[in-house]
Amino acid sequence: MLEPYLSGVWKDMFTEGEKTGPRGAFPHGHRPWFHPQDFSRKDVRPETEADNYLIMKEKHLDKYNVGAAILTGDEPIEASTLANPYYASALVSAYNDYQIAEWLPKDSRFMGSIIIAPQDPKLAAAEIRRLGNHPRMVQVLASQGSVKPYGDPFYHPIFEACAEVGLPFAIHLGGHGGINWNAVAPAPTTFFWETHAILHMSALSHVASMIAHGVFEKWPDLYFVIIECGVAWVPSVLWRLDADYKALRKETPWLKMLPSEYCRRNIRFSTQPLEQPANVQHLWSTLEAMDGENTLMFASDYPHWDYDDANTLHIPPAWKSKIMGLNALEVYKRIPRTQAANAA
Amino acid sequence: MLEPYLSGVWKDMFTEGEKTGPRGAFPHGHRPWFHPQDFSRKDVRPETEADNYLIMKEKHLDKYNVGAAILTGDEPIEASTLANPYYASALVSAYNDYQIAEWLPKDSRFMGSIIIAPQDPKLAAAEIRRLGNHPRMVQVLASQGSVKPYGDPFYHPIFEACAEVGLPFAIHLGGHGGINWNAVAPAPTTFFWETHAILHMSALSHVASMIAHGVFEKWPDLYFVIIECGVAWVPSVLWRLDADYKALRKETPWLKMLPSEYCRRNIRFSTQPLEQPANVQHLWSTLEAMDGENTLMFASDYPHWDYDDANTLHIPPAWKSKIMGLNALEVYKRIPRTQAANAA
Repeated sequence: MLEPYLSGVWKDMFTEGEKTGPRGAFPHGHRPWFHPQDFSRKDVRPETEADNYLIMKEKHLDKYNVGAAILTGDEPIEASTLANPYYASALVSAYNDYQIAEWLPKDSRFMGSIIIAPQDPKLAAAEIRRLGNHPRMVQVLASQGSVKPYGDPFYHPIFEACAEVGLPFAIHLGGHGGINWNAVAPAPTTFFWETHAILHMSALSHVASMIAHGVFEKWPDLYFVIIECGVAWVPSVLWRLDADYKALRKETPWLKMLPSEYCRRNIRFSTQPLEQPANVQHLWSTLEAMDGENTLMFASDYPHWDYDDANTLHIPPAWKSKIMGLNALEVYKRIPRTQAANAA
Repeated sequence: MLEPYLSGVWKDMFTEGEKTGPRGAFPHGHRPWFHPQDFSRKDVRPETEADNYLIMKEKHLDKYNVGAAILTGDEPIEASTLANPYYASALVSAYNDYQIAEWLPKDSRFMGSIIIAPQDPKLAAAEIRRLGNHPRMVQVLASQGSVKPYGDPFYHPIFEACAEVGLPFAIHLGGHGGINWNAVAPAPTTFFWETHAILHMSALSHVASMIAHGVFEKWPDLYFVIIECGVAWVPSVLWRLDADYKALRKETPWLKMLPSEYCRRNIRFSTQPLEQPANVQHLWSTLEAMDGENTLMFASDYPHWDYDDANTLHIPPAWKSKIMGLNALEVYKRIPRTQAANAA
């Protein structure tokens, strides 16, 4: 309807770009940035749900010989953006049941995520306990966007429940709208590409906060998994955290190790989107500085526009078996060792 | 008065820590985090202003054979936090006059900064034009904290004035309170050390924003200098910016180079606080990835707690003459070449 009145790049963005219309099946407060080319790969346009699985099987699972694939949903983590926590909790609960009923049976390689609405930690903890013993639900998942950094005591009921059922707590890029309006500091940037490049910045706060509040002293076996926030920023943040902690540790007397030591023990990072410098040695030095051999886990981001292909991932060849599977088996203990291949 | 009622670390922090009381001579909206040990070096406690200079001369300027030292003030950049832009602009104007009248004459090595209150870009531009031709005022300076990312057209009158008088636009860590309340995403972290380690995150947005809005196409000779925000985060952000720009450049058709190319040409970083990894090779690889030999300029942060000493800075020895002075002479053209030593 508007198309005849638009021209040039604006017309292109309106035609090609992400829309909040009929596709947005999962209610959420939308972020203020629109993807100018839409999120999905142009070669992945399923017409039906059955089709959705068959395309994924062909273009991803079979093609790359995936042994186990952890489903993270797409829009459900956006429940964290809704003002009404009861509605948000009901929505993720429904999504989790749908996932168990309709997706896990499709393929024995599929593992599930218990999606939570973290804005009500008690309801989130109840959801974790409700499904936490399902043998194929392997992680608890929330959005990176949140109303507070995740180490805050406000969220501790969530970690208590995770520890109780023995599941890692994972966050995934997303939830940057609605009640989680503060996605970047000091205020919203303007363009999608500009914003996407720095949209991982809340993850810096979550790492700092989870460590500083002593979450890993209270729950030493808890894994915190950061998905789709990139990885090359990690060493620089750890260097700063260690230096500042050494100077001012009296603020947090409950800590017993350096921030980088907690990170090494309790935090894991998914690879996607793996940064691509002109000189791969610069990336590898960065990955070495975060002990990437032991802290990285492959993720594909299928079926999104910036999908990482398992065969061409630029990681040191000697680390491949760990990053493509063995590290994930340490974190996701419910995945059978016989399925010891890629987790995506 | 409260001391008898406090114990342990709380008493220590109350006694030793930063206070908003009589010391806070420059009015500002204070950030919500208090430094638990106060900001100043314990061996730098001047009783008078004359004393302040003499201690600096002894412990910094003479000790490290400083050739030129750019003054950045301390609290004046906090004017950016004030709700009243007229008052804020009057305060920085008064500070600039005081700087010229009372500090520049003290020592021929001193160079000045034109402090601005960026929340009113037109008044800021007027201040830049008022003092922009003073031979010893060598940069325009604002706080990292701001109401928007600095590339926003709202701020362009400031860059127009900088270009007109031929001065770089610099930002310095600070201004994280008052109207600039959104210092970290997604919401305030809790402790000072935890926050200090990630407080540079607005600089990521400023880099992205200045490039994406085409500030360096409009003013190709403008230098943007980032002070006291650390440096090791730069490559990871440039890798992300380049990748996202390549995929979605149609959003910003006015750009003609990669984000990393604009950064290399127009953005400079002060070293302090230089990150300190366990393995210095990891830092040096990171610095190499940002062409640190040509993009870094030494800063000391004298007289603050995390002061970097010019003699023990962990930079590759071959880069020393550039980082300790020559790079600054490219950016600060008013500093006489005969003073070609350290800029602090």
